Amino acid sequence: MIPVKKISLDKAGQSRRKFIYNITTAVGTGMVLSSPLISKAAGFVKRNDQYTVKQVIDLFMKQVPGAPFPNTVDTLKSGSPDTVISGIVTSMFATIDVIRKTIDLGANFIIVHEPTFYNHTDATDWLKDDDVYQYKIDLLNKHNIAVWRNHDTIHTLKPDGVTKGVLAQLEWQQYAGKDIPNILTFPQTTLKDLIAHAKDKLHIEKVRFVGDPDQQCTKVLFIPGAAGGTRQIGAIIKVKPDVLICGEISEWETAEYVRDARAKGDNISLVVLGHIASEEPGSEFMLQWLKENVPSIKATHIYCGNSLSFM
Amino acid sequence: MIPVKKISLDKAGQSRRKFIYNITTAVGTGMVLSSPLISKAAGFVKRNDQYTVKQVIDLFMKQVPGAPFPNTVDTLKSGSPDTVISGIVTSMFATIDVIRKTIDLGANFIIVHEPTFYNHTDATDWLKDDDVYQYKIDLLNKHNIAVWRNHDTIHTLKPDGVTKGVLAQLEWQQYAGKDIPNILTFPQTTLKDLIAHAKDKLHIEKVRFVGDPDQQCTKVLFIPGAAGGTRQIGAIIKVKPDVLICGEISEWETAEYVRDARAKGDNISLVVLGHIASEEPGSEFMLQWLKENVPSIKATHIYCGNSLSFM
Repeated sequence: MIPVKKISLDKAGQSRRKFIYNITTAVGTGMVLSSPLISKAAGFVKRNDQYTVKQVIDLFMKQVPGAPFPNTVDTLKSGSPDTVISGIVTSMFATIDVIRKTIDLGANFIIVHEPTFYNHTDATDWLKDDDVYQYKIDLLNKHNIAVWRNHDTIHTLKPDGVTKGVLAQLEWQQYAGKDIPNILTFPQTTLKDLIAHAKDKLHIEKVRFVGDPDQQCTKVLFIPGAAGGTRQIGAIIKVKPDVLICGEISEWETAEYVRDARAKGDNISLVVLGHIASEEPGSEFMLQWLKENVPSIKATHIYCGNSLSFM
Repeated sequence: MIPVKKISLDKAGQSRRKFIYNITTAVGTGMVLSSPLISKAAGFVKRNDQYTVKQVIDLFMKQVPGAPFPNTVDTLKSGSPDTVISGIVTSMFATIDVIRKTIDLGANFIIVHEPTFYNHTDATDWLKDDDVYQYKIDLLNKHNIAVWRNHDTIHTLKPDGVTKGVLAQLEWQQYAGKDIPNILTFPQTTLKDLIAHAKDKLHIEKVRFVGDPDQQCTKVLFIPGAAGGTRQIGAIIKVKPDVLICGEISEWETAEYVRDARAKGDNISLVVLGHIASEEPGSEFMLQWLKENVPSIKATHIYCGNSLSFM
């Protein structure tokens, strides 16, 4: 988290904001953050209060002990931390299309979950002579739009904000474990029924899967996004679910493990929802957080859509 | 390449094999390797000659200057280099099912293209207590089966053995560039026709794609496997194709770049065939190489099938 002092130094005239920050620190992060109404309840924030990009980032990071983490990818990808926010858009990706819609809305701050420049760390050296990159960064610069990636932080929130958002959209909260919501216990359900439900609720054209559509599933391991083979397989080994439902895999990792486990005789399946479909509701979670914590800012969730179609 | 001396030291009674190796070294690797009939032509190899695992690996590596490369993944994943080969199977993956079929064939050497233990380097420490891993390694050990990954080496062959195999199965050799076969020039073809052809020839249930099915395509960039976002996008930037056809992507990389390029106005599409479908014919290339270079060994290509289905 960016220290309070820094905020007041960077941005003149923010003493009231600084005071609020100090209050929340004094009261204790845990309690403050569990209360979405803290700003209003404390009576310090007016509906028409202005915020800078940095202040909103800071407010979110305050909830997660240790944030910002060393080497985090949760950095600004464009724009200035000192920009006064005219409106916020939440989305999985700041695609060129999402940026255009943001401009149309009169907003100037996009909070995304995934990279803006096609690689995890958003390195741009290799793209500097590319006209797609140039077009995108020029568009952002011309309209003074700040893009912040909220990936490591929202995932470290307890409970994980993305998982919470997706479980809500799936209407699966009742099946989620209390300690680990990623482990769900269903009444006996066939794999094909689970898939049909997820496709319907998450607006998915097709999923990829390994398994028997008629397999009965009770224990579901749900890991949105692309956690990587070691984590996905490691979790399967530990949890021994009937099915792993995830966002994205590397085909030589998790798919092959599940294929081998089935060949050995294990009752396990794999469902790959698609990365965007599996984490998109995290942007809806973020929207709700903004509405509750910085209600004076107009915030909009723009669905960037799934990039991939099927033929 | 393992030096000739080492082979004769490691394996007693291989003086004749050693002599052949020395001859090929003296004549020059380039010429020798361009002639698949060298062994027979030289008159030193009988149809019933025996080979060790190491000798076959060595013979293949001899074609690629500098192989084995530092930190290559082209290592033995099970078995001994000194095992006398009873039969060879080529496949994309040594799945448990492929291993069982290998045993049924009486073969004891599997040449794969991709990992055996669900991660690129085939690290197994993290799997040692897992019963799927244990089942698989026990099966390999019990039947003394050697598994060798031929990934870096076959890709560095000129031309790339995998690309060559896939272009042959696609019947696209006539469209391939002479210097860079991965850049193909077609008569005007729609994206949907290209996809339909690839699905038919490579036995694909569904592809994932970004683009307009009616887009006219002439210049096709074809990169089998999962080359990674930086290489895939870097190649798009350099080649400026109408479409990139590849095996696998990370969704936050190449798919998003192509989506943005299209939003900017570029006439570009992306087709994701699936990793196995896009490289499987490399195992057919390997089979042909074995038949031509070690004709005394019974060699079989086992199609491991695509791991993922669609629903």
